[in-house]
Amino acid sequence: MSAQPYDSHRLCELAGELIVNVRELAARGWTPATSSNFSQRIDERHAAITVSGRDKGRLREADIMVVDLDGAAVGSDHRPSAETLLHTQLYRRSADIGCILHTHSQHQTVASRLFAGAGHVRLEGYELLKAFAGNTTHEAAVNVPVLPNSQHMPTLAAQVDALLDRGPLWGYLIDGHGLYAWGRDMAEARRHLEAFDFLLGCELELARLTGSR
Amino acid sequence: MSAQPYDSHRLCELAGELIVNVRELAARGWTPATSSNFSQRIDERHAAITVSGRDKGRLREADIMVVDLDGAAVGSDHRPSAETLLHTQLYRRSADIGCILHTHSQHQTVASRLFAGAGHVRLEGYELLKAFAGNTTHEAAVNVPVLPNSQHMPTLAAQVDALLDRGPLWGYLIDGHGLYAWGRDMAEARRHLEAFDFLLGCELELARLTGSR
Amino acid sequence: MSAQPYDSHRLCELAGELIVNVRELAARGWTPATSSNFSQRIDERHAAITVSGRDKGRLREADIMVVDLDGAAVGSDHRPSAETLLHTQLYRRSADIGCILHTHSQHQTVASRLFAGAGHVRLEGYELLKAFAGNTTHEAAVNVPVLPNSQHMPTLAAQVDALLDRGPLWGYLIDGHGLYAWGRDMAEARRHLEAFDFLLGCELELARLTGSR
Amino acid sequence: MSAQPYDSHRLCELAGELIVNVRELAARGWTPATSSNFSQRIDERHAAITVSGRDKGRLREADIMVVDLDGAAVGSDHRPSAETLLHTQLYRRSADIGCILHTHSQHQTVASRLFAGAGHVRLEGYELLKAFAGNTTHEAAVNVPVLPNSQHMPTLAAQVDALLDRGPLWGYLIDGHGLYAWGRDMAEARRHLEAFDFLLGCELELARLTGSR
Repeated sequence: MSAQPYDSHRLCELAGELIVNVRELAARGWTPATSSNFSQRIDERHAAITVSGRDKGRLREADIMVVDLDGAAVGSDHRPSAETLLHTQLYRRSADIGCILHTHSQHQTVASRLFAGAGHVRLEGYELLKAFAGNTTHEAAVNVPVLPNSQHMPTLAAQVDALLDRGPLWGYLIDGHGLYAWGRDMAEARRHLEAFDFLLGCELELARLTGSR
Repeated sequence: MSAQPYDSHRLCELAGELIVNVRELAARGWTPATSSNFSQRIDERHAAITVSGRDKGRLREADIMVVDLDGAAVGSDHRPSAETLLHTQLYRRSADIGCILHTHSQHQTVASRLFAGAGHVRLEGYELLKAFAGNTTHEAAVNVPVLPNSQHMPTLAAQVDALLDRGPLWGYLIDGHGLYAWGRDMAEARRHLEAFDFLLGCELELARLTGSR
Repeated sequence: MSAQPYDSHRLCELAGELIVNVRELAARGWTPATSSNFSQRIDERHAAITVSGRDKGRLREADIMVVDLDGAAVGSDHRPSAETLLHTQLYRRSADIGCILHTHSQHQTVASRLFAGAGHVRLEGYELLKAFAGNTTHEAAVNVPVLPNSQHMPTLAAQVDALLDRGPLWGYLIDGHGLYAWGRDMAEARRHLEAFDFLLGCELELARLTGSR
Repeated sequence: MSAQPYDSHRLCELAGELIVNVRELAARGWTPATSSNFSQRIDERHAAITVSGRDKGRLREADIMVVDLDGAAVGSDHRPSAETLLHTQLYRRSADIGCILHTHSQHQTVASRLFAGAGHVRLEGYELLKAFAGNTTHEAAVNVPVLPNSQHMPTLAAQVDALLDRGPLWGYLIDGHGLYAWGRDMAEARRHLEAFDFLLGCELELARLTGSR
């Protein structure tokens, strides 16, 4: 009966997890004006991703579609968002990436503008750096890259690929836009996302208080 | 039986949509002290609008009245708010306007004060500019007009008319007051409202951080 | 049967209204660390007031007691809070005061510290000034007095009395402490409270942005 | 039947209280990225503490374990978090300490960074200082110590012991990390936690407004 080239039971579970988590992120104001998109890997050839332009605070199953790792829709008439390529490039690149969360909080957008010139935000001296997989001490420092914004996704994807060549990376900012964060699964991706957002917020607050950046 | 000169079933649907959306905006603190008002077009001659002075966080059907496009009450003893004229002028002006949201968030009020001298807030370099109908790239810039406040609605309405003559417009600020935003329907009006509020918040934050405006 | 010198049915209604409204204010963070107190007039000789030290986010009927207008407990073993006197002086002073809301939001506390030297916060140029009973235009200006803090309530009460002698007043700040706001009933008191808090927040934000105050 | 060396009924009550309170603190954003931990004393030899790394916004009974006052797990395979030692040292030190709340709000983290050089944050002139057990007037001043961060818990514990030798203490900050606050029971610990967070927030806001610290 089912001609679907993926496990529909697994899709159902992942969609449920997306709905709960995306609604929580929307309630924090991190997905203004129907922006942002979210995905989970189904298997080595497919991912579930939110349909572009839907209200993330009311996300439901019909707002989630399946794409292959080239970004083409599978069993759906929805046109995948242009940014789908930034999701699928990560899934293709590493089997260890299982979930990608792209949000637009005010902290993220403002930090991306403020640090676009520097090309990165340096996070240092925070206990919460231990939230990033592989970090075991607050003495680590993490550089969050800030990429120039572009409507040409292959350009952005090539820059991300170059960053991944340099070493472990759990997220990046795009100037004037927002944050991409990822992890092995939803729990890890969300932990990374929350840590990035919290630490970017602290950096902005310290910049206001000390007048330096 | 029904002497109402509009489709009461459509009113019922629009009122339900208003109640859900207005309560959500109230929960964000965008309607302090019973301020703000909200409307939807019923047909080419009528609109549904919130009754002045009601607690927007507890909005219910009895808090919504019908006006004609001259702003006169239809089938109701409630006196329409003075600002009703700012709603009806837009409905008269364009058949493409189906919903108008007027709120008083702190971002909106502070930005209106800060940029009243300049007469507009320039929004530029943000991905979220694509949230405005017709914009397809973040490379667009949007000027949000800031009008001087007045208790004389025809004065305000004339200024808005002049702005509309110049080109597409999805909202404006009034100094010390708040924001009017609109769209084809509730979904588009709310997307515009959220985009304006988010981007005004980013501009204020960047002004604090860089000490310039 | 009932030896109570007030209408217990009216008390029940007022208590219900206090519980709903106080919990909403607590949810906004305006009553940190069990601070703040709230009252409603029962009749010309009694008021219902929250018992000191209770968690306002979980307020229930047992957390509300009755006092006479000298501040003595009526039919209760609870000791009224020292600040009860600041409530009862207003009820004694004017039959038009039916509800008093005392909160500790961060806006209120910070504004009270920042403007203690000036002795007042001047609110001017805001549409929301029309939220205060009797104001019909945004062209009005409202001065919110800031009293020096004191643990000696008669000292504070005497200062409030002197302020009331000068003209209409809908609230005042105490330095390092918080805000008292009142009105004819809960709806008006809450409208005044929300307007004060919103406008104090705007003033602080503008002071940060313009570097002046 | 029960081989547990503590009263399991009391554990059940304390766990329920932890779940309700920790979820509320998580909803405020004080436990980002699964950080923070929380405990209650069961008896003179045991405490209940949250298992490290769990999502505090979804805390449930299985996320709470029992440790002895040396920090060893009792009747559980979970490895206690390294920071457990900072809890148990307080329970060993004083029978009057019944509950310890460790959170990571943005106020706490930023204040800890900003005041690390000074070694403390001085809180003075606030009515809310009366929220700390033993303070009866706003004329008191409270110094909140800021300890250098360390992954070596005995080093931190020794510094806390030295602080406790000097006099009454209801909490401390760790640089780049967060706040520990405690009290006789959950109600008092939470009152202290909320008072610290609120007052640190006021201090940061005043520092921004006055440009000094």
